[in-house]
Amino acid sequence: MVNVHVYITLKEGVLDPQGHAVQNSLTALGYEEVEKVNVGKWLRLEVADGNNLDSRVENMCEQLLANPVIENYTYHVEREAKV
Amino acid sequence: MVNVHVYITLKEGVLDPQGHAVQNSLTALGYEEVEKVNVGKWLRLEVADGNNLDSRVENMCEQLLANPVIENYTYHVEREAKV
Repeated sequence: MVNVHVYITLKEGVLDPQGHAVQNSLTALGYEEVEKVNVGKWLRLEVADGNNLDSRVENMCEQLLANPVIENYTYHVEREAKV
Repeated sequence: MVNVHVYITLKEGVLDPQGHAVQNSLTALGYEEVEKVNVGKWLRLEVADGNNLDSRVENMCEQLLANPVIENYTYHVEREAKV
């Protein structure tokens, strides 16, 4: 069993209304030092370890998890060493 | 200017319908090795560097970004070394 962490964010240049809303709220609360906010998604998948893990995770992202037209994704695999 | 990355996830035991929906969709697409999915948020804040950064970020999370009743948050600060 491995944990796969997938981070999805809007591509540079795509309008991020949720990020703007959060930034405006932070400013209204007095956190004027915050100059920009981007809101993305973070998914944690528990996956049975197997062959082609990387290519299968990439396919999951392309097919379902991210919208490759407007979103970028990165992921990392968290694997415990077998002792 | 520092980048603060905030990761927000539902607490253990809180129902995650979005995670279930993603898992079911992955299974339907043939990714049967995925046994559990949690969906969380990832926020990237560009913050002017100043005093009390840690405590201010914690307050932002408690006041606005996360719902401390049902969500956990972690964050890390990405700071470039001044050369």
